[in-house]
Amino acid sequence: MPDMNFSEDYEYAKLLDADDEMGIFRGQYVIADSQELYMDGNSLGRMPRRSLECLQRIVEKEWGHQLIRSWGQGWYDAPQRVGEKIAGLIGAAPGQVIVCDSTSVNLYKLVMAALALRPDRMKIVSDTMNFPSDLYILQGCITSAGACHKLHLVPSLDGVTLDLAELFGAIDEDTALVTLSHVAYKSGFLYDAASITAWAEQKGALVLWDLSHSVGAVPIELDRWGAHMAVGCTYKYLNGGPGAPAFLYVNKGLQTKTLSPVWGWFGERAPFYFEPIYQPAEGVQRFMSGTPPILSLLVMEQGVDLALEAGIERVRKKSLGLTNYFISLFDIRLHPLGFTLGTPRDPAIRGSHVSLRHPSGYQVTRALIEEMRVIPDFREPDNIRFGLSAMYTTYSEVWDTVERIYQVINEERFLNYPATRLSIT
Amino acid sequence: MPDMNFSEDYEYAKLLDADDEMGIFRGQYVIADSQELYMDGNSLGRMPRRSLECLQRIVEKEWGHQLIRSWGQGWYDAPQRVGEKIAGLIGAAPGQVIVCDSTSVNLYKLVMAALALRPDRMKIVSDTMNFPSDLYILQGCITSAGACHKLHLVPSLDGVTLDLAELFGAIDEDTALVTLSHVAYKSGFLYDAASITAWAEQKGALVLWDLSHSVGAVPIELDRWGAHMAVGCTYKYLNGGPGAPAFLYVNKGLQTKTLSPVWGWFGERAPFYFEPIYQPAEGVQRFMSGTPPILSLLVMEQGVDLALEAGIERVRKKSLGLTNYFISLFDIRLHPLGFTLGTPRDPAIRGSHVSLRHPSGYQVTRALIEEMRVIPDFREPDNIRFGLSAMYTTYSEVWDTVERIYQVINEERFLNYPATRLSIT
Repeated sequence: MPDMNFSEDYEYAKLLDADDEMGIFRGQYVIADSQELYMDGNSLGRMPRRSLECLQRIVEKEWGHQLIRSWGQGWYDAPQRVGEKIAGLIGAAPGQVIVCDSTSVNLYKLVMAALALRPDRMKIVSDTMNFPSDLYILQGCITSAGACHKLHLVPSLDGVTLDLAELFGAIDEDTALVTLSHVAYKSGFLYDAASITAWAEQKGALVLWDLSHSVGAVPIELDRWGAHMAVGCTYKYLNGGPGAPAFLYVNKGLQTKTLSPVWGWFGERAPFYFEPIYQPAEGVQRFMSGTPPILSLLVMEQGVDLALEAGIERVRKKSLGLTNYFISLFDIRLHPLGFTLGTPRDPAIRGSHVSLRHPSGYQVTRALIEEMRVIPDFREPDNIRFGLSAMYTTYSEVWDTVERIYQVINEERFLNYPATRLSIT
Repeated sequence: MPDMNFSEDYEYAKLLDADDEMGIFRGQYVIADSQELYMDGNSLGRMPRRSLECLQRIVEKEWGHQLIRSWGQGWYDAPQRVGEKIAGLIGAAPGQVIVCDSTSVNLYKLVMAALALRPDRMKIVSDTMNFPSDLYILQGCITSAGACHKLHLVPSLDGVTLDLAELFGAIDEDTALVTLSHVAYKSGFLYDAASITAWAEQKGALVLWDLSHSVGAVPIELDRWGAHMAVGCTYKYLNGGPGAPAFLYVNKGLQTKTLSPVWGWFGERAPFYFEPIYQPAEGVQRFMSGTPPILSLLVMEQGVDLALEAGIERVRKKSLGLTNYFISLFDIRLHPLGFTLGTPRDPAIRGSHVSLRHPSGYQVTRALIEEMRVIPDFREPDNIRFGLSAMYTTYSEVWDTVERIYQVINEERFLNYPATRLSIT
């Protein structure tokens, strides 16, 4: 994987861009300000241009004209249709993925279902690198389930990676559920999902993957891993739009044995017959809740289509090209300035963002945003995250980003900002 | 309330329209086909024209340009901001309403919270006129809570109204929760929410109102009634768009005593500090779950704004004008053809739609849609629902609708259609 032709010069970035087979996709996204370096696509992806046509169709034909009839003309099927498209990105055979609710609500539903499937086991295993939002849901689920379960968080010693042996040691015959984020939101660590799933399966535990930071960025093979359940968000690397509805996966073999705690009418066998007694739908649809937010869902579909057109192999190749290049430039330009790498150096265990750690990380982030037209984001205590999207980030943008980070330190611009976080973004 | 000048002639409908102070609002909605009589605004309201400007703003400025920064520029606050607007429509003082999730998910969260607040009471009271979707959620909640609760459904003897005495009799010292739809989805019966809430309160039970069929259509005074909780949908009379996010209300006095079962990060005290241990937000915000669907939410806000501009008093006056007029024409033109009224004749207990019952109701509905350009909807076993929206329905449209129903029977057009439902709409 080392790039033998590597050079730190800007011309080399231009060469890489010229040679980039994914370059054709950048034009598919709205880039309102080409001088601004948007490095936060792992938090909110850019808007696909075709979202505009989609919105126009909704406005002029669907909501605006066909009104209620649109439910029978593409709306009612949309959670399944888009779910099957996402299935193609996560290695799931048909009939196992549905779009509904938020990642948090989906996680709640699946965790409650998983605990009910393993009523004699009282341990939930996760780790300290998981999304806090997922840990909150787990804490709530334990309360909902009667407060008898124990949440075991495997610690990450370096804050970047997880020791698999330690994780394996934590999974035992009392473990009902192992739930982890496939790519760690802070460090970008990519878990060996196949081995972890196989180990848990051997111990009789269920495994639930949060794919929010991996879907549309790295290859995922839920069926091959033998994963039991998964959830994921669509507004990061899938570019689905702010708060776009999430998805969930329930393995075919489990579907008839389990139910969502939320007996929603969209998960009912025949919702428009208005029968008084709930009868769950046959397949994964039983995990749907209420009426889905159609505007957000249909716009999100556009981002998913683009990811499918690119293909996850090409996406992964470009993504690693970007992160490798970023790290090579970091070594030369930024490491001497006091930055350390908060992301695995080994590409085999790296997602699609690079975290740089710096004692003045928050100040550096503010300076980049306010003065340098670079948009990363900051995660406590000292991580500056640079999300690199295979769909639209260029090598030149990476080069420019590293140079602007260099300037923030070199020109002491970061000293213009408070050391602690004041705003929510 | 009887209209002394009433005439069955079309000219009288035109006079009523000319005299309609709400007439100025019709132009605020997209009406793509003025010959089509859209009578399903109680299922999916029409699209406000200003939704277009809102979408343009999201596309050009927010998602399309400011990207992640938009969270700090109106997105993050949107659930509260729109919640407070809705509060103005439902008689709630500030700090008690939030927009999030779907009606079903919100109902699940609040029912679970209510049952936890009354741990020694095992009865949930509702009625057979409630939304099946709400009854499903209640059935799921009972399972989630350990299957010890019992759902008591007060029967409606005529399918149109509910005997208050019977409801009162069902609410006892074992009742944890009374939950009803404020306006019955099928008959349009409007419940005496003040009396019911007071009675339940006296028995120590909590009361949760589903406002889906009343918000934006009839006056609601949650605080004055002493209601404990409420949920509601925004895509019916609020014209928020298909599947637009729902809202929930938790009375100030209860907020600190209760939690959502879904410990979502948007309900956390400081979600962007990413602390590992969940701490609920102070107020009603603790009932939020995950990231809200921003596109659907901001578009929905436009419909809420229009309802606020109209004012609920004017809305109610027009709504009753429309339903009274519809019923007067029904008496003369349709009753002789075998239709019966499935909606209360007394305006004081009527919401904003009129249901007509007919033995061939499904066939009549199909004929109206396929041949007559009238769009009502059908609810088993024999109800044809005509949703009349104060915001955009005209008296002329009501007149035309009644005439076209007359023709369907008179010309035997309904015989062209199967007697049973085949499609989902």
